[in-house]
Amino acid sequence: MALTVVGSIAFDSVRTPFGERERMLGGSAIHFALAARFFTTVHIVGPVGDDFEEEHLERLSSQGVDVSDVERVAGGETFSWRGHYEVDMNLAHTDDTQLGVFADFEPKLSKASQAADVLFLGNIQPDLQRRVRAQSNGSRLTALDSMNLWIETTRDSLVAAIGEVDCLLFNDSEIRMLTEEPNLARAARSVMEMGPRIVVAKRGEYGAVLFTPEGFFALPGFLLEDVRDPTGAGDSFAGGFLGYLDMQGTDSHSLEALRRGIAYGTVLASFNVEEFGTERVARLTEAEISERYEALRGMTHFEGPD
Amino acid sequence: MALTVVGSIAFDSVRTPFGERERMLGGSAIHFALAARFFTTVHIVGPVGDDFEEEHLERLSSQGVDVSDVERVAGGETFSWRGHYEVDMNLAHTDDTQLGVFADFEPKLSKASQAADVLFLGNIQPDLQRRVRAQSNGSRLTALDSMNLWIETTRDSLVAAIGEVDCLLFNDSEIRMLTEEPNLARAARSVMEMGPRIVVAKRGEYGAVLFTPEGFFALPGFLLEDVRDPTGAGDSFAGGFLGYLDMQGTDSHSLEALRRGIAYGTVLASFNVEEFGTERVARLTEAEISERYEALRGMTHFEGPD
Repeated sequence: MALTVVGSIAFDSVRTPFGERERMLGGSAIHFALAARFFTTVHIVGPVGDDFEEEHLERLSSQGVDVSDVERVAGGETFSWRGHYEVDMNLAHTDDTQLGVFADFEPKLSKASQAADVLFLGNIQPDLQRRVRAQSNGSRLTALDSMNLWIETTRDSLVAAIGEVDCLLFNDSEIRMLTEEPNLARAARSVMEMGPRIVVAKRGEYGAVLFTPEGFFALPGFLLEDVRDPTGAGDSFAGGFLGYLDMQGTDSHSLEALRRGIAYGTVLASFNVEEFGTERVARLTEAEISERYEALRGMTHFEGPD
Repeated sequence: MALTVVGSIAFDSVRTPFGERERMLGGSAIHFALAARFFTTVHIVGPVGDDFEEEHLERLSSQGVDVSDVERVAGGETFSWRGHYEVDMNLAHTDDTQLGVFADFEPKLSKASQAADVLFLGNIQPDLQRRVRAQSNGSRLTALDSMNLWIETTRDSLVAAIGEVDCLLFNDSEIRMLTEEPNLARAARSVMEMGPRIVVAKRGEYGAVLFTPEGFFALPGFLLEDVRDPTGAGDSFAGGFLGYLDMQGTDSHSLEALRRGIAYGTVLASFNVEEFGTERVARLTEAEISERYEALRGMTHFEGPD
């Protein structure tokens, strides 16, 4: 039982209506790993620059994340993102992106990372995702995220990458953009024709939908009075979802396990947005996760007709 | 057990990516009544003009709706709306509105309409809603819908009307607009401070959220591969919700009954959008409603941690 994630390791500078932060630890691989670590062993694959403080890696190790495949590039700068959110926090506005060491990144997976049971290809250039996929030999469940940029600029590579995975995890608007199909259920069916047998549509505060050949499942987002920074929520969602599935082992493809996975993803994403960056999930406890899982069940449960 | 609805009785001309129709039977009171009739006796209050075909009223009567408070105004024209939807069918574009007989409408409720247990004040000018509310004497549950136009143009009247009802049923964006609070949970709390103890936020294809002092409840919309015309979905939702609550009698304020009501509202709205105007709900059967209610339960159910 182990999970490998490749994705960005970043410094995020974020402004929202509730405050701002400079150069926080962030990136898709980080948000994913901090959520998935509650369920399984996580190996992070990705590059950082000289400017990346050793204490971040030490802290991740102490949180149970294996960072031995984090590559420190001499003379390089860590990937950085600067963005802000207006009152409608469903939409991120990017102000600046510096690829840094990601510009020439060539992933090299250790034996342990190659052999992991679950592989998550976080949002990076699709050819990089494919090279990681090619090195994996143990994965019985591979999932992929992406973004509008790659749909627009490297569509053929992205479609090839999608053809090589079991599960696609996209924002709903990106599923519609990729398939040019406005109806989400039809769009998910088009994605399945590209290869994946599992499609997850992330809908921000509105929750998520799971599509499988056996049927579909939908949950609203967990309702919160305090949402301070949505950055990384989708990756925390993916970490909760895939971390739980890895923990389930060979049962992870049953619809019942997938449903629970969506619920755990929803729970982890809900903690992510309560504070800035990784602040909340970094100090989260298993007891808090269990409590909110039950609260989410209570929030969505209704009885049959009386 | 009876329910009174006041709202528009209209001719709708609608164009969507899936076709167009001229002068269909429509309006908030009609969509509401066609949904609520499966659960209870419905009295419609509202005006029509000389141009309103008698066969519409006859058909409503044959469907179990009491039309004796539909007032035919000699020399008047029936309210009409013309609109269209682009690919994103969450947003209606209004091309024309003719108030017709609604411009001088003065509601007069019969004894039966006054005595109904549940009263729904559909989306009309808030002073009209208040005059209907004042005539009602049997209502143990009064609910109100409105729209951005009245928030912008007659806010004081609307706030007064809201102060006189038990339940507010708005689109989520309108709840935010009314309260000037971007967070939906906080916005719902602000609404409760205006009077209503039940707040329902309609989120279009994303479903609905229920807020009560005892807690909240949320459901995604029922997923459909074919959505042809969303006009009236919110009123069909309200009809399913309040119709079910009226059928429950004195239990209608329990959180469990409210949850089931939200589920029935979701079911009725999902049928509404499958075809144009009232086409689908007009020929709906109780068996189809029960089947979809169970499908919605299956679509949203997940087990506790194993």
